[in-house]
Amino acid sequence: MAVGSNTFPNKMHAVSGFELGTASAGIKTPGRKDVVLMRICDAATVAGVFTKNAFCAAPVQICKQHLESTISRYFIVNTGNANAGTGQEGWNDAVATCTAVADLCGVDSDSVLPFSTGVIGEKLPVEKLISALPAAKNALSVDGWMEAAEGILTTDTRIKGASVQFSYQGKLVTLTGISKGSGMIKPNMATMLGYVATDVAIDQSLLQQLLIDATNQSFNRITVDSDTSTNDSCMLVATAQSDVRVSEGDQELLSLFSDSLVSIMQELAHAIVRDGEGATKFVTIKVESALTQEEALKTAFDIAHSPLVKTALFASDPNWGRILAVVGRAEITDLDLDALEIYLGDVCIVSNGGRDAAYTEDAGQAVMDAEEILIRVVLNRGAISETVWTTDLSHDYVSINADYRS
Amino acid sequence: MAVGSNTFPNKMHAVSGFELGTASAGIKTPGRKDVVLMRICDAATVAGVFTKNAFCAAPVQICKQHLESTISRYFIVNTGNANAGTGQEGWNDAVATCTAVADLCGVDSDSVLPFSTGVIGEKLPVEKLISALPAAKNALSVDGWMEAAEGILTTDTRIKGASVQFSYQGKLVTLTGISKGSGMIKPNMATMLGYVATDVAIDQSLLQQLLIDATNQSFNRITVDSDTSTNDSCMLVATAQSDVRVSEGDQELLSLFSDSLVSIMQELAHAIVRDGEGATKFVTIKVESALTQEEALKTAFDIAHSPLVKTALFASDPNWGRILAVVGRAEITDLDLDALEIYLGDVCIVSNGGRDAAYTEDAGQAVMDAEEILIRVVLNRGAISETVWTTDLSHDYVSINADYRS
Repeated sequence: MAVGSNTFPNKMHAVSGFELGTASAGIKTPGRKDVVLMRICDAATVAGVFTKNAFCAAPVQICKQHLESTISRYFIVNTGNANAGTGQEGWNDAVATCTAVADLCGVDSDSVLPFSTGVIGEKLPVEKLISALPAAKNALSVDGWMEAAEGILTTDTRIKGASVQFSYQGKLVTLTGISKGSGMIKPNMATMLGYVATDVAIDQSLLQQLLIDATNQSFNRITVDSDTSTNDSCMLVATAQSDVRVSEGDQELLSLFSDSLVSIMQELAHAIVRDGEGATKFVTIKVESALTQEEALKTAFDIAHSPLVKTALFASDPNWGRILAVVGRAEITDLDLDALEIYLGDVCIVSNGGRDAAYTEDAGQAVMDAEEILIRVVLNRGAISETVWTTDLSHDYVSINADYRS
Repeated sequence: MAVGSNTFPNKMHAVSGFELGTASAGIKTPGRKDVVLMRICDAATVAGVFTKNAFCAAPVQICKQHLESTISRYFIVNTGNANAGTGQEGWNDAVATCTAVADLCGVDSDSVLPFSTGVIGEKLPVEKLISALPAAKNALSVDGWMEAAEGILTTDTRIKGASVQFSYQGKLVTLTGISKGSGMIKPNMATMLGYVATDVAIDQSLLQQLLIDATNQSFNRITVDSDTSTNDSCMLVATAQSDVRVSEGDQELLSLFSDSLVSIMQELAHAIVRDGEGATKFVTIKVESALTQEEALKTAFDIAHSPLVKTALFASDPNWGRILAVVGRAEITDLDLDALEIYLGDVCIVSNGGRDAAYTEDAGQAVMDAEEILIRVVLNRGAISETVWTTDLSHDYVSINADYRS
């Protein structure tokens, strides 16, 4: 199940200098596309954000080390096994994977970044993975985005991608990306997996900052089930193959590029929410005029995580009392209940400390019947606003997570 | 659905000086016992703890005021309507209820404490409630515990009670109590509703402290769905009708009494978890040798609230990777992954930063197959331990909260 129609673009624009190749290693399911190799050209810069889970998986730890030591030339992704909670053996397996890619492709081992996603705590079948590398290498192509989008999926029901182009002073700039994720989604630095490439040139330090800023407006603002993965990673590659350089010296271009990056990353993040495990609703939660970013985010995420709000959303039940109860327990210091307003879409449900005088059940019901729902909490005490995106909690969520080991 | 067999005692010992009377007002469901009046004798002291939800309901606000202004003589409880989120009208309705009890029973209005539980945000049908008061008054009896346990239920499937007696220097001391709660359970001061009476004499300030301490070992350590109610309240009454005075001057008696109080309140709290909405498992989560109480509680509650852990519990799936992932995201500063151990029952699942070398799936499965499951996280970094109790997340939880307005 997933919300709305698929948002995967008809056209995934190629990014010169960034190639993707997909193969089948049979890591968990025979015949499934489960290995993706990505090649990055020489002149590129690379930025990454990674999970803050203390138990971050061996490949994530190695990614961080390699990213710091040299410019990355290859990403190697496998699904079906997260290589997390696997101790020293898992570390060795991730290193072996990098070495195999390095030998095959004639680069240094520390220019290879490994990514694994799937079940936690089982040994990575590293021989299977390595045996699929030649096929993945042979498949490398700037047009490999759609196959790669399929190759990085686990419990997802849809491929996820976004692609935009804009012109600046007569020159074309391209940004294209893919993501995957459906459960264990409450990223804390990045989504499960995201890869975005662009053909502009950008210094690494600025690229990293742009990625962090965009992540905080996209992947770090979504939640399906409040669980932060051990393997979340998001990578941004600037191949420098177009004739455009993004820098702080050209604020107009920087702003254009930054907006496009945020837009594409929001699209990729929203696609994860729409494909959230068991999702039947796509829910936007805006907390407005808060005093601090912390209280805005806590209130928004508390609503997004409340099982009672999520089951009411599943039922299309305008049970506004449950939303009010969550705002009440969000630990907002000196909250003025009389100043607070809560809206379902455009319908005011709470004002003056209780149900809004003009509210009718029919008006609330009309908002809740839709597949896309906006919950807006106006605290009327400051200038900070934050938005997060989430799903409902359905029978299918329980089935997906209780009936199968994932 | 509920876990295990009912723990309601065969014998609820009467507490001299504390009477309970139950009646039907048809507040939500015609014929249902939904009004309970409790009478407290002259010499008693009364203590209370209340929800920390900022949107605490009108009756809770009035309870706090009245408890502070004079010694309480009557509790009046209704189910079917929480009188929460009802603004000034709700306040007036709660005051009118107190006045009606006061007029009927010949006491001051501020010696009456009102309690409401049920749906949030709908007007209390106060005339119905008031019309049932004479019947409730006529039913007042020291043997009214069992009927009252039924009269305070909402979505609960079981009555909940506990009763103990102990002898001290040849004198008998009695503690008896009832509770209710099944959903919107993550109390922050008290459960949905709890009433405990004892026949000893205790000064009010000591009584209040004993109640707070016992609450922090019982109702404040349980969670079904992470949602804190707007109406949580727990009351403790000492009627002074026995010949025993509990005071700090007699530490042996104080300790005996305090242990009995914790035991009875844990029994009442556990009964709520066992009857948690859709519950099929009763889960104890112990975090041991933590550095601070805060990190112990955060880790324990994060595990208790994780939808992925809760669905694995429902499936009896020893998916220990999900537990490990939660510990990893619990934001424990400088957590030493290699020192950490995690146990399912007596089976070690995590040590040395990964799956324990001796762990087998069969051993984990045997623990998970049981109805009562212990998850133990040993941080090995300090001297603090905390325990919380929770349920699994089942299809029935979704059905109960999506199919009915509660």
